[in-house]
Amino acid sequence: MATNAAGCWQALAQTKEQSILNSIPEKWRISTPLPAPDKLPDCTGGYIQQYLTPREIEITEADAVFITEQTTSGGWSSVQVTEAFCHRAALAHQMVNCLHEVFFDEALTTAKALDDYFVTHGKPMGPLHGLPVSLKDQFHIKGVETTMGYVGWIGTFEGKKDDVRARNFESEMVKELRDLGAVLFCKSSVPTTLMAGETANNIIGYTSNPRNRHLSSGGSSGGEGALIALRGSPAGFGTDIGGSIRVPASFNGIFGLRPSAGRLPYEGAANSMDGQNTILSVIGPMATTARSLKLLMQSILERRPWNHDPMVHELPWRSSVEKDLQGVVKESPSMLTFAILRHDEVVQPHPPVSRAVKSIEEILRRKGHQIVDWCPPSHKIAHAIAKEAFQMDGGEDVLNNLALSGEPQLPQCFVAKSTHMTAAQISALNVRKRQYQKAYLDYWNSTSECTHSGRPVDAIICPTAPHAAVIPGRFRHVGYTSFVNVLDLTSAVFPVTHADKDQDLLSSTVSAGYPNRQHEDITLDSECKLFDLAKPQQNKLNFSSDDPFVYDGAPVGLQLIGRRLEEEKILCLVEYISKSWSELS
Amino acid sequence: MATNAAGCWQALAQTKEQSILNSIPEKWRISTPLPAPDKLPDCTGGYIQQYLTPREIEITEADAVFITEQTTSGGWSSVQVTEAFCHRAALAHQMVNCLHEVFFDEALTTAKALDDYFVTHGKPMGPLHGLPVSLKDQFHIKGVETTMGYVGWIGTFEGKKDDVRARNFESEMVKELRDLGAVLFCKSSVPTTLMAGETANNIIGYTSNPRNRHLSSGGSSGGEGALIALRGSPAGFGTDIGGSIRVPASFNGIFGLRPSAGRLPYEGAANSMDGQNTILSVIGPMATTARSLKLLMQSILERRPWNHDPMVHELPWRSSVEKDLQGVVKESPSMLTFAILRHDEVVQPHPPVSRAVKSIEEILRRKGHQIVDWCPPSHKIAHAIAKEAFQMDGGEDVLNNLALSGEPQLPQCFVAKSTHMTAAQISALNVRKRQYQKAYLDYWNSTSECTHSGRPVDAIICPTAPHAAVIPGRFRHVGYTSFVNVLDLTSAVFPVTHADKDQDLLSSTVSAGYPNRQHEDITLDSECKLFDLAKPQQNKLNFSSDDPFVYDGAPVGLQLIGRRLEEEKILCLVEYISKSWSELS
Repeated sequence: MATNAAGCWQALAQTKEQSILNSIPEKWRISTPLPAPDKLPDCTGGYIQQYLTPREIEITEADAVFITEQTTSGGWSSVQVTEAFCHRAALAHQMVNCLHEVFFDEALTTAKALDDYFVTHGKPMGPLHGLPVSLKDQFHIKGVETTMGYVGWIGTFEGKKDDVRARNFESEMVKELRDLGAVLFCKSSVPTTLMAGETANNIIGYTSNPRNRHLSSGGSSGGEGALIALRGSPAGFGTDIGGSIRVPASFNGIFGLRPSAGRLPYEGAANSMDGQNTILSVIGPMATTARSLKLLMQSILERRPWNHDPMVHELPWRSSVEKDLQGVVKESPSMLTFAILRHDEVVQPHPPVSRAVKSIEEILRRKGHQIVDWCPPSHKIAHAIAKEAFQMDGGEDVLNNLALSGEPQLPQCFVAKSTHMTAAQISALNVRKRQYQKAYLDYWNSTSECTHSGRPVDAIICPTAPHAAVIPGRFRHVGYTSFVNVLDLTSAVFPVTHADKDQDLLSSTVSAGYPNRQHEDITLDSECKLFDLAKPQQNKLNFSSDDPFVYDGAPVGLQLIGRRLEEEKILCLVEYISKSWSELS
Repeated sequence: MATNAAGCWQALAQTKEQSILNSIPEKWRISTPLPAPDKLPDCTGGYIQQYLTPREIEITEADAVFITEQTTSGGWSSVQVTEAFCHRAALAHQMVNCLHEVFFDEALTTAKALDDYFVTHGKPMGPLHGLPVSLKDQFHIKGVETTMGYVGWIGTFEGKKDDVRARNFESEMVKELRDLGAVLFCKSSVPTTLMAGETANNIIGYTSNPRNRHLSSGGSSGGEGALIALRGSPAGFGTDIGGSIRVPASFNGIFGLRPSAGRLPYEGAANSMDGQNTILSVIGPMATTARSLKLLMQSILERRPWNHDPMVHELPWRSSVEKDLQGVVKESPSMLTFAILRHDEVVQPHPPVSRAVKSIEEILRRKGHQIVDWCPPSHKIAHAIAKEAFQMDGGEDVLNNLALSGEPQLPQCFVAKSTHMTAAQISALNVRKRQYQKAYLDYWNSTSECTHSGRPVDAIICPTAPHAAVIPGRFRHVGYTSFVNVLDLTSAVFPVTHADKDQDLLSSTVSAGYPNRQHEDITLDSECKLFDLAKPQQNKLNFSSDDPFVYDGAPVGLQLIGRRLEEEKILCLVEYISKSWSELS
């Protein structure tokens, strides 16, 4: 399979890495190396702003809704907005290593055409007219490469040499975004395999967390998370098969939505283990505000994507849901019930995560909503199902793609070779999954017996991970997000707080809080480790009493989870909760 | 696996067969044996009516809509209606062998309770109040067995001995139907494996076609088709993974709908190869009129089945579609475009089928609609995908179920043992399927260039099989229906005509019409034979010039095919077309 002799992959990777840097205009390059993370853990806010004009700061710190209000009314020009984001994205990449593809010239050409369109027609091209939108490096865009972090994909179409589709094919989402008037300008970094909660590959290396550069930006949409946190993009799209939108959203302090499968078009996007259809990867938006997620969802659905992607359900955006909910929130808040999942009975959340859950619970109580505990069918079953689904092909797809160049595996993305599951085994897994979905749904329905409204619980508050943005090499438990994929629920992540060495250390003893080295979670090995690391002895959790200091300042986001295909409801509630949190916290 | 010693299966099967006959009340038994098929090909209409009172005939020859108008308004009592259908179903079974389970006493108890409810509350329990509904023997009903035609399932729950769910568990659809006020009274026959276009098993034998007893009732919902054709039930539910609702609907001259997956709840129904999720089996209604199909679909969706089956999409019945369409039909018929698929380029339809297509085309032209030819991506690709999907587990599921009793395979349902597909092979198949779906959708969209409306073609007229109700042992080409399952489209079958030995012989030469023995379709073996028969030499088509005489009187139905999840549109158009056909033909 290795089409490039071993030893050559380094040169290929290095050339590609350099070409990304080279595509950044000279004027936007940072000449002085960044201080070490110890000196400068956080490069957001004031630090990145020093390189920007006040006007660029004003534009890039606006959210997608405000920006489109300007660009669709002639307030800001598309070129002006695009240039500001290109500049800031260039800085972001130089700070945390978050981009795979940079095509600012093409973006500015598009922006110019949009401005001309506005002048000629006196109206915007679509609801996203002039909005820069970044994409995870799984989407194909004309004139741009897609490597998905594989060295062997450089100069090919998804690893295939001499394929006319290379740099010449567009994913369905790309077409929809263009028709809506969005400006595509860069593609963000992903981990090799896509099956990792950190972002690292042999082309660009490691994508760090901009709020605390000691830490991970999460994965697999880690580049997207870091870029948006640095305001190098107002909004973008990631993908999520086990938590890949929600984990980086949480780790970077931004918003992200994992819609149910069949809502947004995946057609024509690159993927890992394509055709594994026990648990489907889905596309979802990531942005700096909840209302931006809604703008993106609503705009894409306006395009009726089911007419172009046979896997999308004909389900337009249902605005009535929002109106109904707003009425309940105002007039009878006790009729809205939130359930809280504090601990998945597998890995205990760290103190800052539990503190985030308690804070939101407190706010919702003050608002008059009913709060109940969430005690569903064991999440261990979901973990086991996800693990089998993700290892179905015995690593073949990933190992073949690595073999194209001979590049080595990275510990964060390690895949062990094993035997393929057979058709009957896969069928049995699909039945187990469906039975678990049914049991979970039955449990959810049964909560109507304890709600004031007499309806089942409206949504679930749940950690996104057992920790804040993670220490590199320590992402091991994906169970807080992957059960959502097994169940195909809707889940939005919203930022809540940051790890605080004083607060989180004082509020808990070391052993009950951040587990120390002696306090390893032995259930993790046997039950729930979805992303295999190299050796069994490394699989044990490895918390230390130094952790509170390393984690200091790391963002913590929580999930708000709704039933399948309840994107309208969940986005409306996330906007409401996050607004309540800002006002009352 | 054989829990019953070889040799014993006959006794078990015979006891079960006899118990079905025994459950028919003495007063409803036919004492004189039926004349041979040569003397009495057609046992519908006048023949079966001789056993019924005028009142019973009036009730059983009404459709589901008329019946519910009576039973929900106090016009007819539930008991009266139920008793009439129980009687006629009992006769039907004795004529064509179409039932697996008979539970008339329970049905009459339910009917009595419904009548009491009506008296007490002054209103019906639901929109199906008092409507007898029959079910294919895949649905579990309390107090009733489910064998699905397997001898080894007798006295078990889906082959599992001592399982508390046996006779004690209800499928989701059964619960919904009860809540809607329907009266369940019998379960209809299926072929062993469910993967056959004829209905035969080792328990009840062969289910014949009531319109021409020389012929097959189709499969796999053949019992349901025959029962409804004999008016032994006004409406029922079958399942369809390759054509199993549409083939028997066509062969028995009734209406049937194959909805897209995720519209009706399959939760808790028995199935073959459960967990194979490349091509999903779906549940759909079968009835004597198009409007009855709509009543059933609309009623089930009123129950919001997505709240109880995690695989159902939250997609209520969209009445607005119907209103819009009725406007177009009346005011601007040329804005409605039908495409015609005359030949799938694999097996040429027989003269009566081509005549049916031409007749409907003619009617639609007279109504002012636009007609275009349908030239989609090759259906051979769809056939190949379906074949692989259906043989994914190398026959393991079916062979294990046969081994439970040691019963032999039947030629109509023969499954060859082969190797399992691996995870990577299944993934590759899923990708091929998705790519085919996308190519088909793109073709469909491209038709907007040739329609008067500027929209893509509204629906496709297509044969259901290359022949009318088939000669036993001759069902070999499922391609006219299975491509719909590969694409997950909506397809409704409506009755059009009957094979006519004079008309169909005169209208064509033998070689261009019914192929003779020398005119075998050699492409069938290699490309499209989905249901393997015992030996390769038997797989060749085997038409003879005697065929027109055997086929005489055999029903021919056609499909009207819409896009994915377009059930509202297709049912509305089928009602319209079939009304136009009655008026103008």
